[in-house]
Amino acid sequence: MSQYDVLCIGNAIVDIIAQCDDAFLSENGIVKGAMNLIDAERAELLYARMGPAIEASGGSAGNTAAGVAGFGGRAAYFGKVADDELGRIYAHDIRAQGVAFDTTPLPGEPPTARSMIFVTPDGERSMNTYLGACVELGPEDVEDDKARGAKVTYFEGYLWDPPRAKEAIRLAAAHAHQAGREVSMTLSDPFCVDRYRDEFLELMRSGTVDIVFANESEAKSLYRTGSFETALEAIRKDCRIAAVTRSELGSVIVRGDETVVIDAVRIEELVDTTGAGDLYAAGFLHGYTAGLGLKACGDLGSFAAGLVIQQVGPRPRKNLRDEARRAGLL
Amino acid sequence: MSQYDVLCIGNAIVDIIAQCDDAFLSENGIVKGAMNLIDAERAELLYARMGPAIEASGGSAGNTAAGVAGFGGRAAYFGKVADDELGRIYAHDIRAQGVAFDTTPLPGEPPTARSMIFVTPDGERSMNTYLGACVELGPEDVEDDKARGAKVTYFEGYLWDPPRAKEAIRLAAAHAHQAGREVSMTLSDPFCVDRYRDEFLELMRSGTVDIVFANESEAKSLYRTGSFETALEAIRKDCRIAAVTRSELGSVIVRGDETVVIDAVRIEELVDTTGAGDLYAAGFLHGYTAGLGLKACGDLGSFAAGLVIQQVGPRPRKNLRDEARRAGLL
Repeated sequence: MSQYDVLCIGNAIVDIIAQCDDAFLSENGIVKGAMNLIDAERAELLYARMGPAIEASGGSAGNTAAGVAGFGGRAAYFGKVADDELGRIYAHDIRAQGVAFDTTPLPGEPPTARSMIFVTPDGERSMNTYLGACVELGPEDVEDDKARGAKVTYFEGYLWDPPRAKEAIRLAAAHAHQAGREVSMTLSDPFCVDRYRDEFLELMRSGTVDIVFANESEAKSLYRTGSFETALEAIRKDCRIAAVTRSELGSVIVRGDETVVIDAVRIEELVDTTGAGDLYAAGFLHGYTAGLGLKACGDLGSFAAGLVIQQVGPRPRKNLRDEARRAGLL
Repeated sequence: MSQYDVLCIGNAIVDIIAQCDDAFLSENGIVKGAMNLIDAERAELLYARMGPAIEASGGSAGNTAAGVAGFGGRAAYFGKVADDELGRIYAHDIRAQGVAFDTTPLPGEPPTARSMIFVTPDGERSMNTYLGACVELGPEDVEDDKARGAKVTYFEGYLWDPPRAKEAIRLAAAHAHQAGREVSMTLSDPFCVDRYRDEFLELMRSGTVDIVFANESEAKSLYRTGSFETALEAIRKDCRIAAVTRSELGSVIVRGDETVVIDAVRIEELVDTTGAGDLYAAGFLHGYTAGLGLKACGDLGSFAAGLVIQQVGPRPRKNLRDEARRAGLL
């Protein structure tokens, strides 16, 4: 018997979200649409220049865990916050969503991670992440029972940025595979792929990872190609299942010779793309761990992504399970 | 020459906003639609029961200051935060909106105030406020130059809850009137009116306050009447100008024998009523300090209130000046 459907591991980050125009991004050297890593000093500088903001718990894999729980799945999460106000907010939000979260908070400095997210009028988000307490996540934070007891252990490529999180991932993946479970990752960001291309490919080719999530840019970056088709054929060979998202073009799922094309859902208004990929993974993994076929998994992913991009913030405020039922998907 | 259009004084509060159903309110003894004052212990208890939330700077008069600045007016604010993470977020947000905010933060305990706001499916908000550092606001926080230099000094009735803020208000009002300026207040909440009825009436009848904002329930509570007309005729005699809001019925402004009826604006979807009264006051006072007539002031108030209730959180994310221009109001 599995204890959890999905265990997610990631950088535990509070999002600080404000609007800006495109000129602001270029004036401040922010790469649009990307996750820009920043240090404490630049965090202060950017915050001083940032407009009025709202705060919401985020972190890629944390959003996915919240999404799985929102669908009614059993989710757990490993991630490092500090023992401070933002850390307590983070822990509250993910637990209040029904996710099992027991990683010991870091006493003292550095503080809980935060990402200043600038949303431009086109709905695109550009992130500026100060990793804070996340740099302390390590193998000692892997709770063996959860890694062995989850149908799928899912982690973010972003975890290659802090120094020791990759050790935690290798340990958790070993536990999971020993228990006959599956392991999944998201490539996270095209620049992140560029920083850790060889390691990500090794994770896939060695079978450490079974299921890979990527968007089109990340897949192209992984194989240094401008062709989506080339990237798709390459990723098909490198892992058991790959789901590649393409924004308004939907997504494509490949498993061996099988190819499943998923339409994007129609939305009324694109507000903020933050969390789109995370919620796609949540919908997919909820369907997958419930035993649904790839088409149904992809449809749930598209549906959840479509919900989250019509609001400000990375975790849907609407009830995913109720909305998916209303849409006839569950 | 005035240095500011509007100086706002209030409890500096970070809002923690989540959704709930009506059963949750009654199970937890929360008075619907009201501001429920809570202590630290109950704050912890309620937070543990609260769903996933987002955080946004709030506080009634703080929202009004942000609204005035959002319209392009010159706004200042007095309010007490602690020297902690939420206090820094509060200060950032109000300054980033262009409001002059220089109140010295409280070193040490208690922490920055927070209000857990539960939004029910009908869009109504029910607030649970832990006053924290706000209890330390006192006359030493009145910056004379700002009180003398603002066309209107505006404060919230909620300031009668902390022990010494009323002394700050009397001092600021004295400075303002000595400089030939006007003083305005909001009655804040029907239960707040019930707590301080005699003092509020004395503020109005003594001429300490020139312009009063109230909603229908507050006006009725002030005069212990179930009749809107009775309340309106009474408030007409007790202050120079009164603006009484009536939700979807719009608002009524009285000045001596004059009566101006303002329609509510049409909205697409009522999401969260938090900040409606605060933004009405912002629009009104922006128009008033720009020299507009009462009808135009009321229309700006209605417009700003209509914007903020179509989003989650108490301060409009849309640019008030741009939107008002587009609507032909500025």
